[in-house]
Amino acid sequence: MKLYNFFRSGTSHRLRIALNLKGLAPEYIAVDLRTEAHLQDAFKAVNPQQLVPALVLDDGDVLIQSPAIIEWLEERHPNPPLLPAGPEARAKVRALAAIVGCDIHPINNRRILETLRKQFGCDDAAINAWCGTWISAGFDAIEALLAADTARGDFCFGGAPTLADVYLVPQVESARRFGVDLSRWPLISAVDAACAALPAFADAAPARQPDAPR
Amino acid sequence: MKLYNFFRSGTSHRLRIALNLKGLAPEYIAVDLRTEAHLQDAFKAVNPQQLVPALVLDDGDVLIQSPAIIEWLEERHPNPPLLPAGPEARAKVRALAAIVGCDIHPINNRRILETLRKQFGCDDAAINAWCGTWISAGFDAIEALLAADTARGDFCFGGAPTLADVYLVPQVESARRFGVDLSRWPLISAVDAACAALPAFADAAPARQPDAPR
Repeated sequence: MKLYNFFRSGTSHRLRIALNLKGLAPEYIAVDLRTEAHLQDAFKAVNPQQLVPALVLDDGDVLIQSPAIIEWLEERHPNPPLLPAGPEARAKVRALAAIVGCDIHPINNRRILETLRKQFGCDDAAINAWCGTWISAGFDAIEALLAADTARGDFCFGGAPTLADVYLVPQVESARRFGVDLSRWPLISAVDAACAALPAFADAAPARQPDAPR
Repeated sequence: MKLYNFFRSGTSHRLRIALNLKGLAPEYIAVDLRTEAHLQDAFKAVNPQQLVPALVLDDGDVLIQSPAIIEWLEERHPNPPLLPAGPEARAKVRALAAIVGCDIHPINNRRILETLRKQFGCDDAAINAWCGTWISAGFDAIEALLAADTARGDFCFGGAPTLADVYLVPQVESARRFGVDLSRWPLISAVDAACAALPAFADAAPARQPDAPR
């Protein structure tokens, strides 16, 4: 398999964590968003949406959209499971993931921030405030849901990593980058620390990727 | 079951379609986003994220986040299926859904547009241009993926509705509301027309809901 991705992309980061948790190591192909390599014809031929990540299977089939790829991983490589047993428990884990995947990350995505800079003249402080608004709203909800789950262990759901952690950790990394004070969310911070101790998460971190600045 | 939702909300609309396709008719509870009923304590007690939709099960369990609720529906009420057989086919359907669910809808959501109006002084024309940008980018990608699928029937994938149609139709409705010219995407328009002919889609339309203006 070949993984088209970018070290700092949050959706790439979450897919790397999921791949690591499943024990899979596809070939790493960097798509440099800083030079807009994703907008060039070579990558458009891989993914018509021109966004990372994309996972090319050994038969040439191309999978796009990290939520779809991660569900595919869970179906094709079920062990270790990243979703619990039971539809209601699975819905709770998927809801935590979707708060990040739908309501935080896409709004702070590179193309949105570029538009805010170009069309509305946003400077770095305004960008950080914009990102902080949506991160805070989503993290407030996640913190409340974690607090309400009395059966929770060290992770977002139960005592082992799930899809929820796979989505949350890259968003915490992004929050740090945008200067958001994480002390307001002690449960999220504790989950992030528990994940950081696991090689599958640590090895997926942006700074450890081959295209990260040295 | 009780469905907390709002007639014009795209995520509520998509969940109504999925419920209809599964033959389920939960009690309809309107949450009026225009009067900010979703931000008041009564609804916060249902969903700490204060967004619609939320589905309250008969045992009191609350499911939030439409992508998570729709996957739950598929697991608890598998017939008729909204995902095809085979992990790769399922990944393709989920990717089409995620283009709408992650990369179009959340960026044009009410809270984002309110922020653009208040913080950047956007007028209706600027709001329509903002929404048009992200709708066009996503629809271009979906149109290309539909065109590349030579086995496709009348719907986004194959000859029966899937998750992809459940997500796409409300986004087409929203595109019309924001004045986007749909003629650029003939395949999407044809899928929308095929869906509109089915009662499950027609009955879920915003104008047909009890809280819609008469």
